[in-house]
Amino acid sequence: MGPVTCDHAGMSSETETVTTPAGVVVPDRIRRVASEAPLRDVMGGDARWEIPVHDHGFVALVDAMPRLIPEGQTADSAIVQAARVSYGAGTKKVNEDRGLIRYLLRHRHTTPFEMIEFKFHIAMPIFVARQWIRHRTANVNEYSARYSIVPDRFYRPSVENVRQQSTTNRQGGDESIDVGTAEEFLKLLEDSEALYSRYLDLTEKGVAREIARAALPVSVFTEWYWKCDLHNILHFLSLRMDSHAQIEIRDYATAMYDLIRGIVPITCEAFEDYRLNAMQLTGLEIEALRTGKPLASENRRENAEWEAKKARLGLE
Amino acid sequence: MGPVTCDHAGMSSETETVTTPAGVVVPDRIRRVASEAPLRDVMGGDARWEIPVHDHGFVALVDAMPRLIPEGQTADSAIVQAARVSYGAGTKKVNEDRGLIRYLLRHRHTTPFEMIEFKFHIAMPIFVARQWIRHRTANVNEYSARYSIVPDRFYRPSVENVRQQSTTNRQGGDESIDVGTAEEFLKLLEDSEALYSRYLDLTEKGVAREIARAALPVSVFTEWYWKCDLHNILHFLSLRMDSHAQIEIRDYATAMYDLIRGIVPITCEAFEDYRLNAMQLTGLEIEALRTGKPLASENRRENAEWEAKKARLGLE
Amino acid sequence: MGPVTCDHAGMSSETETVTTPAGVVVPDRIRRVASEAPLRDVMGGDARWEIPVHDHGFVALVDAMPRLIPEGQTADSAIVQAARVSYGAGTKKVNEDRGLIRYLLRHRHTTPFEMIEFKFHIAMPIFVARQWIRHRTANVNEYSARYSIVPDRFYRPSVENVRQQSTTNRQGGDESIDVGTAEEFLKLLEDSEALYSRYLDLTEKGVAREIARAALPVSVFTEWYWKCDLHNILHFLSLRMDSHAQIEIRDYATAMYDLIRGIVPITCEAFEDYRLNAMQLTGLEIEALRTGKPLASENRRENAEWEAKKARLGLE
Amino acid sequence: MGPVTCDHAGMSSETETVTTPAGVVVPDRIRRVASEAPLRDVMGGDARWEIPVHDHGFVALVDAMPRLIPEGQTADSAIVQAARVSYGAGTKKVNEDRGLIRYLLRHRHTTPFEMIEFKFHIAMPIFVARQWIRHRTANVNEYSARYSIVPDRFYRPSVENVRQQSTTNRQGGDESIDVGTAEEFLKLLEDSEALYSRYLDLTEKGVAREIARAALPVSVFTEWYWKCDLHNILHFLSLRMDSHAQIEIRDYATAMYDLIRGIVPITCEAFEDYRLNAMQLTGLEIEALRTGKPLASENRRENAEWEAKKARLGLE
Repeated sequence: MGPVTCDHAGMSSETETVTTPAGVVVPDRIRRVASEAPLRDVMGGDARWEIPVHDHGFVALVDAMPRLIPEGQTADSAIVQAARVSYGAGTKKVNEDRGLIRYLLRHRHTTPFEMIEFKFHIAMPIFVARQWIRHRTANVNEYSARYSIVPDRFYRPSVENVRQQSTTNRQGGDESIDVGTAEEFLKLLEDSEALYSRYLDLTEKGVAREIARAALPVSVFTEWYWKCDLHNILHFLSLRMDSHAQIEIRDYATAMYDLIRGIVPITCEAFEDYRLNAMQLTGLEIEALRTGKPLASENRRENAEWEAKKARLGLE
Repeated sequence: MGPVTCDHAGMSSETETVTTPAGVVVPDRIRRVASEAPLRDVMGGDARWEIPVHDHGFVALVDAMPRLIPEGQTADSAIVQAARVSYGAGTKKVNEDRGLIRYLLRHRHTTPFEMIEFKFHIAMPIFVARQWIRHRTANVNEYSARYSIVPDRFYRPSVENVRQQSTTNRQGGDESIDVGTAEEFLKLLEDSEALYSRYLDLTEKGVAREIARAALPVSVFTEWYWKCDLHNILHFLSLRMDSHAQIEIRDYATAMYDLIRGIVPITCEAFEDYRLNAMQLTGLEIEALRTGKPLASENRRENAEWEAKKARLGLE
Repeated sequence: MGPVTCDHAGMSSETETVTTPAGVVVPDRIRRVASEAPLRDVMGGDARWEIPVHDHGFVALVDAMPRLIPEGQTADSAIVQAARVSYGAGTKKVNEDRGLIRYLLRHRHTTPFEMIEFKFHIAMPIFVARQWIRHRTANVNEYSARYSIVPDRFYRPSVENVRQQSTTNRQGGDESIDVGTAEEFLKLLEDSEALYSRYLDLTEKGVAREIARAALPVSVFTEWYWKCDLHNILHFLSLRMDSHAQIEIRDYATAMYDLIRGIVPITCEAFEDYRLNAMQLTGLEIEALRTGKPLASENRRENAEWEAKKARLGLE
Repeated sequence: MGPVTCDHAGMSSETETVTTPAGVVVPDRIRRVASEAPLRDVMGGDARWEIPVHDHGFVALVDAMPRLIPEGQTADSAIVQAARVSYGAGTKKVNEDRGLIRYLLRHRHTTPFEMIEFKFHIAMPIFVARQWIRHRTANVNEYSARYSIVPDRFYRPSVENVRQQSTTNRQGGDESIDVGTAEEFLKLLEDSEALYSRYLDLTEKGVAREIARAALPVSVFTEWYWKCDLHNILHFLSLRMDSHAQIEIRDYATAMYDLIRGIVPITCEAFEDYRLNAMQLTGLEIEALRTGKPLASENRRENAEWEAKKARLGLE
């Protein structure tokens, strides 16, 4: 590509270029500023880090920003770099990095955490993907069942992982169902998977892929690239590592967390202290605690939540 | 609810309220400004407008903003109201409303179109929902197959609508496949639907809904409330009413367009002139047209696109 | 506008229309469903509700979605309508509306709150607008100082409202400064405002508005239409009604809250109980409370925060 | 940080870790996949690339994702990597990378371009920042005039760059105004800047920074970190490198483009061919061209636009 010469747009055209020592061609009006310290790759030179999930799934970390950081630092330093621009030069000496990061996360100053970006390659069943895609801030490129044949991969839980519906909680359940019913359900899944060969056969006979896939169950696997900033990843993880999330997506979220923990360790420590392990007290609960009176609510569920919190706090 | 007294937050508390003639309680520091003209409901007092799609689906308009507009106007007037604040008072006499709206849309001044909002209730197959949800600017509340039993509704195309895979275009196809193969495919769908009774039976035996649904095919229906501003609705429609979109989602998009056309007619007319029926000429095509030379590209597909555009323009 | 006939896009064209009793033209494939109960306007037939802020500013509510609601309900009902689609028909009898809304807000099920939309017209100083615009989920149309002359309106605080810099908190301060310094500052503002007549004069001599405005101080007023869903409005309010927010934007946020309180009263009550008046306990604080030991942190600020929380909880 | 043990959340805890050759600690369930080809840094080992803009401003590229790419490739390869997951394995042989990237950009398949991310550090006048911030998809950390003293840097145009208001175009103007008026305007700017010493003096006397800054003109500089994906950067550039954009922001946009051109050269070439140098023909214009009749519009401006397009196309 030559220089920009979009004259109709009134741009000044750039005619001179230089080639950097690394072979990159740049316009010569660019001032290059060398790094003060040697840079190291936060992924150690690897192409990807991968954690298998279930029989056919995985979460793979394929890139990070920052990827290269000065020796002796972690990628958390990009948060500090951005926060310093907000707080101005005067703050440099006052806070040390860990304290600043913890302060920012504790007080929900979220924008500096958006300066870190991770890119993942993930394979998961469609019913998991449908929960996942509701997080709208990520960038996504998904495998297209319109363009391509869907591979023969299906989610099948272990017998123990066929849960029974909770009676107290309409969201799923954590207890296994009796083995007989579990096996009956696994047989149903097997029969739904068995339709795959007819799907394949019909696409070979010329049925358009976009319509042929209608017969596949939501247990079939899809995959995507998923790129997101750290603030929104932490929001995703706080919801999807939670005990109310469906176990299947929790397995993916936990794998994702394991992949980033070594790269942004200071942030993850603060995330556990101030988010994962934290507790919200409502105005009513504060009043009840302060006065020793019962909760000013007749709602049964709200009272049960207050009892559970008191138990965790060691009160009463 | 009493007055706001969040003293810890340093807010000034508001203690006085008044009740409006319509029975609405408002703090008495609110100045109420009456409408100059009588207002009419753009939906004519209805609760919803609905268009059936396929056997079990529908697109229903359930609300619009603005809902009440002065007599003699259309909801397009909200675009003009917002644009006038950008352009300042001086512009009021110069442009008339229709000309302004057309100018804004032609020149992609998109923000005034974001001032109009529509809310829909939609029922559609999961494979359509999965294409739809990729439009991230909308607000969505979807039926939860974790909480509730999925109803017995499946998408089944007509025999003519079982398309064959296009050989020139990897995205689907518009031609019907032979009747024999189509019927074989419809039998496959029937067999995938037949698993539903076992899904129902197993949930009655206590299998958690969140896991039981794994056996259901992506042809099963889901539903959601979907709320979006007009600019992003038009973007959605321009992609999903397009001939490259899968026919099934095109049917929904066309129904949505029919629902809003009577409410924002000036915008829709401009949308057809400047978006739906428009054509992009690339820099290479402009050069070819200007000089009479062949397209400066050896890419076969790019040349075919240029030939198609020339045909549509009546050139050569 | 006639019927859609975008044949190149492969759309099925719609040729028949009907005119509703209210004079709205709709394609005749639309099924109109009448409201079960008479509808009332949540704004009582008014064009706008306005609260003056400072000398020249205001927050005006210009529209709401839902605007029309069944007699006997509040606009909160739109949250319930959307949540019911998620939870399915079975839940209808179990929960009553207020309990459901409180549950949703307490457990951060945020999407149903996105189904309500408010539109405001606001006039505020540029330095306030610059904080405000950081909330990215809203739709905004701002007065353009490129197109139009900026009117002669500037923010000037009262003498008491000229605060001194806090020594413990780098964010502003709440104490007034001595009267002499305050008056010196007000004189500075007066001198910055006095440049306005030369701005006006130079634009009359032909200097482009886009460049002439460079001399105006950030205390000058701008205005915009600002449209946002209720979930994101509550997020905005929780940050901008907070005691750490700058007083000037807090005044606008409080006015906004007053405008919506009468329209979504159930949500606002829950917002106060579960958000405004709530408190977060960190993992370290939970542990300290449970064990009676000191906080496991040597960070001075974190310890001070814990002391403040204990005081508010009536502990020690 | 130790292993995750958030037992209350039901997560499986990870107890084993390993240290990679690069000193990164990772849970031992991570499978590390080495790169096939040696990796090179797209920024050639530099900490930043910077282009000065105006007297005090700059656009600096501080990071890119991907930062490390296989020898012999450009960062464009991340687009191809993501697109391949959509199109499936079968496409690998068919298209070559450049053709695929050009196809994606020509047909507005935008999501693969979101897989590339750039981070910039920018210093610019407030009136430029206010136009810039309207692009909502970026992540931003701005210097805070609440926390810190605003440095003494102001935008002052050259005499030639003091434009006169266009009479045909309400957006700014490109012609210089007479020297006398220009110098009168520069004197106005000088006087607005002279207030700075009193701002500084008053903050030293204790006036809170958040309120003291109200006297500063919008020509004063601010700075921020700005991180955005390539798709949205191209959208920003297409609007802000355009001849209708204010010259001052155009200078920044052009600098940004120069910084990324060497890193994603294939995309930038396609961007010029299919976006910057492209032309939209409306439905009315297509009809006029096809039939040889006049444009079916009486709008003066629309006709003028058509004449300009015909001239550029060499028609008539």
